[in-house]
This record gives sequence, C-alpha cells and structure tokens, in this order.
Amino acid sequence: MDIMSKLNFKTIEWKDDFVRLIDQTKLPGELTFYDCHELADFIDAFKRLVVRGAPAIGVTAAYAMAVASIKGWDMTKTAGELIDARPTAVNLSWAVKRMMALVESGKGDTISLMAEAKVIHDEDARMCESMGEIGDKLIKPGMRILTHCNAGALATGGIGTALAVIYVSHFNDKGISVWVDETRPLLQGARLTAWELQRAGVPCKLITDNMAASLMASRQVDCVITGADRIAANYDVANKIGTYSLAVNCNYHGIPFYVAAPGSTFDYECPDGRSIEIEMRVGEEITTIAGNRIAPEGIDTYSPAFDITPHELVTAIFTEKEMIKP
Amino acid sequence: MDIMSKLNFKTIEWKDDFVRLIDQTKLPGELTFYDCHELADFIDAFKRLVVRGAPAIGVTAAYAMAVASIKGWDMTKTAGELIDARPTAVNLSWAVKRMMALVESGKGDTISLMAEAKVIHDEDARMCESMGEIGDKLIKPGMRILTHCNAGALATGGIGTALAVIYVSHFNDKGISVWVDETRPLLQGARLTAWELQRAGVPCKLITDNMAASLMASRQVDCVITGADRIAANYDVANKIGTYSLAVNCNYHGIPFYVAAPGSTFDYECPDGRSIEIEMRVGEEITTIAGNRIAPEGIDTYSPAFDITPHELVTAIFTEKEMIKP
Repeated sequence: MDIMSKLNFKTIEWKDDFVRLIDQTKLPGELTFYDCHELADFIDAFKRLVVRGAPAIGVTAAYAMAVASIKGWDMTKTAGELIDARPTAVNLSWAVKRMMALVESGKGDTISLMAEAKVIHDEDARMCESMGEIGDKLIKPGMRILTHCNAGALATGGIGTALAVIYVSHFNDKGISVWVDETRPLLQGARLTAWELQRAGVPCKLITDNMAASLMASRQVDCVITGADRIAANYDVANKIGTYSLAVNCNYHGIPFYVAAPGSTFDYECPDGRSIEIEMRVGEEITTIAGNRIAPEGIDTYSPAFDITPHELVTAIFTEKEMIKP
Repeated sequence: MDIMSKLNFKTIEWKDDFVRLIDQTKLPGELTFYDCHELADFIDAFKRLVVRGAPAIGVTAAYAMAVASIKGWDMTKTAGELIDARPTAVNLSWAVKRMMALVESGKGDTISLMAEAKVIHDEDARMCESMGEIGDKLIKPGMRILTHCNAGALATGGIGTALAVIYVSHFNDKGISVWVDETRPLLQGARLTAWELQRAGVPCKLITDNMAASLMASRQVDCVITGADRIAANYDVANKIGTYSLAVNCNYHGIPFYVAAPGSTFDYECPDGRSIEIEMRVGEEITTIAGNRIAPEGIDTYSPAFDITPHELVTAIFTEKEMIKP
C-alpha cells in the first residue's frame, strides 16, 4: 500500500537539484515550503527547526550532500558545516558520513550521490511502513488510540513511527480514531500531529496532556502509542516529557502502552534508563507561549525534555523488523 | 498566627464604602486593583473573572450587598442582579441570600449589613487558616509539595485551601518548597499560584502538568495537595482537570495525595463521583493561548473542566474541622 501518497503532504521532496521542505516553523497556521538551494539554506533549515525529527534530518542531510555534488561545493567542508548545524543530531552525522564514505571510496560522482540520497530516503520510508504494519497487527477495528508529541510523517522520511501504525490502520479501514496530546511545553502534538492527522483525514481530537487519565478512566482510550528518542538495552524507553505519566496511567487502567521506534533508536551500550542523561531545557519554553508570557517574571522552572518509561510499563515495542515484548 | 498579613497582597479589601479587588485578569503580568463602587462594577468583576474562586466570589458578593445598603439601592433588585452575574456560583447566591435574610428579618440597617459582610469574610479567612493548620500536621520539614490549579488566597477570602496548608507550613519555618503545575488549559497554576507563592516568598518552581510523574519517579515530590470543586458522599473528589492523573501517579509512586476543602464543598446528596456531571468547555481554551492559535483551524477538541478522583486514591481530606481519611 502506498500510504505516503495518501497523506496529502510531503515533508521532504527532492526537486532534481534542490530540496523542498515543509516549513514546520509555520505550522499549523500555514502550509509553506522552504526550498534549499544553497548550503546556507540547509544549515538554516536545521538550526531553525524548519525540518525536525531525527530521520527527517538525516534524509535532508543526505540530499544536501547530493546538492553539494551537483553544485561542485567542497564535499569535506560541506559535510563538516552540515554536521555542525546540529551537532547532537545523530542521524544528521550518520547520513553525512554515509555520503562521504561514497566520496572517499571513489564512487562520489553526482549520479551515485543523488542515487544514494534517494536510497537513504527510500530506506527510511520503508522502515516507517514496516513499523506501521507490524504495529497494525495489534490494532483492532474501531480502536481509540492516544498519542503524544509528534512521531509522524513530519519527523521522518516516511509515514512516521507511532503515526505509521495509525496511518496503516486508518488506510486499512479499521475505523480507528486518535486522541492527540498537545504535548507541553513545545506543543508538537497541537501544532504538528493534529495538523498531519487532519491533513491525512484521520479522525482525531486534541486534548491537553492532563486530560488523558480521565479519558482512560471513562474507557475512551484503547491503547497508547508513542515514539522513542532512545531505548536502553533492557528496553527502558526515553521519550518526550509526559510519556512516562501516560505509561503509569495505562498500567493503572489496564490499557496497552506501545512504542514504535526503528532499530537505530536502540542503544545497547546503555544498560538501562537510569544511564540515560536527560536534557534540561530553558525556562522560557514553559513561561512563554508564542511570545506571550504566561507566568510571573523571575519564577523558577524545571524543564526536562524527556522522561524514562521503565520497560515493565511497555507492552510492546514495534521496530521495522519485529515486535518486542519487554 | 496572622498569615494573611504576611502574604503581601489582599485579594478582597473593604474600603469603608467600596471594595478593592486584585484584578486577576491582569495577573501575572501586573498587580492592578479594580475598585467596585457601583453595581455594574461588581457584575463586571464577576462576569470577567476579575475575582474568581467560590469563596472569594461569596465574600465579594456580601460586600456588594453592604455597598447597596450604604448607597440606598433597591436591595431585592441588587440581590437578583448579583446572582444573575454568575448563576452557577453557589457561594455567590449563598452569600447574597444570607445578606437578604438579614434585610428580610428587619435587621437590614447599613451598620448590620456591613458587619455581616465582614463576618462572612472573617469566617472564610478563619476556615482557610483552620484547614491549613489541620493539613500542616502532616507536613514534615523540608517536604517538596506539588499542587495543581489555584486553590489559594486569590480564590478565597483567606489564605486559600490547598495553599493554606503550604502557607501555614512555610510560615511555621518548615523549609518546604512547592512544585506548581501550570494547569492547562487555563493556566491557573502558571498565572495565579506561581504569582501568589512568589509574592508570599514561598520557594516554588513552575512545571508543565506532564512533568509531575517524572519528578515523582526521581523522588522529588513528597506529597500532592489540591483543592476540590465538589466532594461526594463517599469522598470521591471532583477537581480541576489533571487532578486525577496526579492521584494515579501518587498511588503508583507511594506518595500521599491530599485534598483541602471546606465543609461547604461536600455534597452529601451526591452518592459518588459517577453522579457528578462534568462541565465541558469550549475548544478555544485548548486551541488558543493568550489569543494565539496553537492548533490547526477546524481541529476537534475534547475539554472537560474537571475530573473525578475516586476516594481510594485520596490519602486524606483536610476541612476546617477535621482530617478525613477516606
């Protein structure tokens, strides 16, 4: 099934000699495109989060290397500048290095590099669809699925991770519907997930994060599916702040809690969740929304970007290859 | 202990022939006052939520009746118009009717009505302090207390309900600190609780609602205290949306979950939480923040104002008279 074409938008599009990105900084207000012709365009797109989500960043970076070859830029210098644009984005450096490996092996002609970027994109799209199909096996007709943050087509080169399951089930006519957690502080659910599900025609309703538990109590949630930022060797899951609270509530209400994540998310060097360092964010992300201050000046804040869901609360993990039951 | 005077603000102040309110629509940005001289001022203050919180509304309405007597307004007509300003506010009609009872008993001279309004205010203040003292018995030195919404001095004629416990413990020098849930969608925690704790000098940190669980997992929360909108005969508690999720998480992490509420909150006609009708709010409260749209146009929403916490998740309820262990 070609679900990508049914979504009614393309996060990343190769246009022969440039890349067209959906400008995610403008969502959900307007659908505008950001065309990357020059190196500065790519760097700007990475830095300003015009494109975000580890897989989507990787695919875009691969195309950037293809553009570099077409335009005759210094490949090594371009590679370094791309990686420096978001130094902590593992997929970015992974994709750039894969393209550079071709250059260094002497097969770095423009045609080969364009083909390699396309392969990286296709691989990512196939992984998403495969994750979706594996997860879809557990989705029963009419299920009401709750999701958190944006683990969707806007974050990948395909149909997403958590949302891949939702898209596959939806286009398999299972009559599912989705509860979208708004996902404070950065509102990726309200801004991005709500936008892409609406655009793809998937029935959904937006809620604030603190409403999920009462929906569970009134038996209006049949399962929760989220993505993951990192999964430890024991299957503890690091994901967007708020995920853990959902998992605890799923456990209390006897509702399955699923995670969809590609194999690259697994960090076998990391024995368990306690070893995962949690990034702390600046207080302004809590105290201001869209430039408006919502809290008193000078108030202290505490803002972890992620939380850890221990494996005993995870019912199943869907990868592109298998279903893992921790 | 006169805690009211230590708070560094007065929600409602009687000024001989008018009432001075903190304009809560301007918080947390600026501390401005709204003086009610005319009936239209009181009605506007109720309708626009210049003053909010059931006890604070009741106290203000009582003073409005005193102003009516001073100025020679038709008492019966004034009473009706005040009640119509917020027809579902039980404390408003309760206070107005108590004042009218005096009028109807023939003791409705101006001096008596002014005294009665002051008594209503003093009674409310005493109830708050008493609740605070009863709750304080369970607060150990250095406790880190998490609270939700605004059950504070801004919502009452005294030092609040949940926050009364916090203020009594703080001014008893127990060295407590407070985690403030921002409380989406209307952000009463970020806007009001953060403001009043900061103003009173209570150490506090603001978080988004979905961060509470991970703080509990890392043993950074020693108890949760919230207010209540209504308590059923079996001690099921209706309170601001998000309360139930906290109670479930407290249960999972073995953390006490306390509720502070005056006797007037108990509805013995209501057998249990399932009999409490939950008010549904308009979607704009979720899709816009401070006038800024944060979600796509046309998105569906679901927005219950309250949720129900079953009594088995409530460790103790503090009233002005006793500590109840459901």
